[in-house]
Amino acid sequence: MGLFSKDIKTLDDLFVHTLRDIYYAEKQIAKALPDMVSKATNAELKAGFQKHLEETKGHIERVEKVFQMHGVEAKGVNCPAIDGIIKEANEVAGEVDDKHVLDAALIAAAQAVEHYEMTRYGTLVEWANQLGRADCASVLKKNLDEEKATDKKLTALAESKVNLQAAE
Amino acid sequence: MGLFSKDIKTLDDLFVHTLRDIYYAEKQIAKALPDMVSKATNAELKAGFQKHLEETKGHIERVEKVFQMHGVEAKGVNCPAIDGIIKEANEVAGEVDDKHVLDAALIAAAQAVEHYEMTRYGTLVEWANQLGRADCASVLKKNLDEEKATDKKLTALAESKVNLQAAE
Repeated sequence: MGLFSKDIKTLDDLFVHTLRDIYYAEKQIAKALPDMVSKATNAELKAGFQKHLEETKGHIERVEKVFQMHGVEAKGVNCPAIDGIIKEANEVAGEVDDKHVLDAALIAAAQAVEHYEMTRYGTLVEWANQLGRADCASVLKKNLDEEKATDKKLTALAESKVNLQAAE
Repeated sequence: MGLFSKDIKTLDDLFVHTLRDIYYAEKQIAKALPDMVSKATNAELKAGFQKHLEETKGHIERVEKVFQMHGVEAKGVNCPAIDGIIKEANEVAGEVDDKHVLDAALIAAAQAVEHYEMTRYGTLVEWANQLGRADCASVLKKNLDEEKATDKKLTALAESKVNLQAAE
């Protein structure tokens, strides 16, 4: 898609563009997660990020499946949103001088990522249904549900352990 | 906060840093919304963005109140996340060549903004409570609840009208 051309003419075009946006985003997240695994101190958080890295690889495969089902090329488009969210996560993490406070910051950063994915998958599921592609919606909903579950687990871990350790 | 210094030593420091992050973000959102009002075609969407602009001004005032309650200077810090989310919204809007599809894209963009705010306010409310500042948590929760309500209204408008028009 060119910056100065108007290539999105239909809801289908917008669906495909947004699918390419989340495809790029998932790949950037898969690249960022190993660093979060290595930075985390709390063992449960470290294991959670590791598990989410495996899940993210599965999400990429599901998005590739939707590209195939919809008959369009699997490719990414630049996504300044996820780039900004990951940049901010790295900047904040670099400013934290306490391992327990860093864990709290990592959870907050990961939840910003999850929320971005939740909003995009939520939109994609709606648009797929609107376009009469309940089959694509069903695959995308699996990713949406896993992102929501990860977000809830992060909240539970923050409330039950990480925030308490960070406040000590 | 310097990029190469480690100024965040406690959960309180992290709370203040994140409060400054959302303060900057809310101000950028207040700057971006008039453009979304003018781009929207659906009258209900246009009015919704206008209403959210007024709400956003109230959110900025509440965050300023929390700065005051917590005894720290009200100032923003750079927030690459919201900059990226807004940049992406503008880029996608610039590529859409149909007014109804543009409305659908504007809703998706606004929901990405709402989700960013929801995750930050959710985190801030938790941290405020952990720091024994239930008073600050209570003020921040008002913003969180309004962001959630706006997100739900956008979903309802997308499902009931805007996506249908965009798919015609």
